[in-house]
Amino acid sequence: MKIVFLGSGNVATHLALAFKGAGHQIIQVWSKTKAHAARLAAGLDAEALNDLSDLDRSADLYLISIKDEAISELATSLKGLHGVVAHTSGATSIHALQDLSAHGVFYPLQTFSKDKALDLSNTPICLEASSAKVMDVLKLAAQSISEVSFEVDSPRRKILHLAAVFACNFTNHLYQMSYSILEQHGLDFNLLKPLILETASKVQNEVPFKVQTGPAIRQDEGTMARHLALLDDRPELQDIYITLSNSIKKTHL
Amino acid sequence: MKIVFLGSGNVATHLALAFKGAGHQIIQVWSKTKAHAARLAAGLDAEALNDLSDLDRSADLYLISIKDEAISELATSLKGLHGVVAHTSGATSIHALQDLSAHGVFYPLQTFSKDKALDLSNTPICLEASSAKVMDVLKLAAQSISEVSFEVDSPRRKILHLAAVFACNFTNHLYQMSYSILEQHGLDFNLLKPLILETASKVQNEVPFKVQTGPAIRQDEGTMARHLALLDDRPELQDIYITLSNSIKKTHL
Repeated sequence: MKIVFLGSGNVATHLALAFKGAGHQIIQVWSKTKAHAARLAAGLDAEALNDLSDLDRSADLYLISIKDEAISELATSLKGLHGVVAHTSGATSIHALQDLSAHGVFYPLQTFSKDKALDLSNTPICLEASSAKVMDVLKLAAQSISEVSFEVDSPRRKILHLAAVFACNFTNHLYQMSYSILEQHGLDFNLLKPLILETASKVQNEVPFKVQTGPAIRQDEGTMARHLALLDDRPELQDIYITLSNSIKKTHL
Repeated sequence: MKIVFLGSGNVATHLALAFKGAGHQIIQVWSKTKAHAARLAAGLDAEALNDLSDLDRSADLYLISIKDEAISELATSLKGLHGVVAHTSGATSIHALQDLSAHGVFYPLQTFSKDKALDLSNTPICLEASSAKVMDVLKLAAQSISEVSFEVDSPRRKILHLAAVFACNFTNHLYQMSYSILEQHGLDFNLLKPLILETASKVQNEVPFKVQTGPAIRQDEGTMARHLALLDDRPELQDIYITLSNSIKKTHL
């Protein structure tokens, strides 16, 4: 397939590299900032542009990977394209692209960071399309980079995105809180890394509910009181400790 | 070494299996409930007991792996032993064992669940001892099952335990919240598993602060408002969503 990327952030970068690795041709990368487009395009043998009037109109697939709130507006500038136009946002409805004839959604359920290589082969790709023909194109593209792709409508994709915020964004912030607690006491975050991996690994085969551990599920009020005392100079962490411990207790009543 | 386990829960089970695998001899397992002792002892060719007067007094190491609040009391029943007595608790001071001549702490910084096999080889073992001679015994034991062991005093071990609550217990509860959101909408938790693994994997090489993603760090108020609307029938999850999003925003000001 001939693919054009509109956007050059983390999602665009990881998808573009995966598509190139799967043998597709990334012909252009557009970004509002030419230098950003150029940085990504360089690794793909693609053309970089920041003027939409230079867009190659012969591509099979145009992937929009920009800030959610800018998608609709960009879409109106793409009217008249014959190729499929899809956005990669979990939280944005397919309707943002409704003015385009062949449109859809291509949402990889994964967390992308700049300098971290990533094998997308088991990342679920959530697909939605304006027609069966468009779905065929998106499926072909998805199956070339991942073994897991499936159709999901916009309301349910938004639920997936919400759940991902809990399982990924909030989780990473908890890692950061533990990092800052250790740092404050001159202890090394490396010590927690095997625990973090094992915690994630456990729920690959068990329901999280069944493998919950810690003082809150044991109703170990003494340990929790001592933990709160250790956080006396970190009222914000105390607040989060109480909120989450109460939630664990309530969930496991 | 000849080792006796006092306690037969998850920590005792995983440690005992690791010690047996490393060639040590587990001679006895004590538990208040004989059947519990017997269940663990059976897999170890060890004797099960629930009466402390039957304790073999020739062991090199006695490991106490029971509820935190019961450790002191059990310790007073062990007076006069010649072997090293250590507890495995992160949150309990070494002083809980102070009436015993050779005592210490042997705390594996890991999460243990019943039916999940676990390679302890990279699990940090936190050691504390009443004397240099006792530390030698604990080090020898630790190094036989893990490549990572180090001395840490009780106050700093309690900090490690507190940080582990954030990185493990609270994290698992977030997994459970995402599970329940998906379940409520008939979506499959399997879809989040690659994301969960990647989130844990990212912080093995990066500071969590640097790889934070999601609507809160982007100050994407529109997406956050829509997420809260989706949680309208789950006020407790709304509360946690707001608390953690505000904390992310504050951390990344």
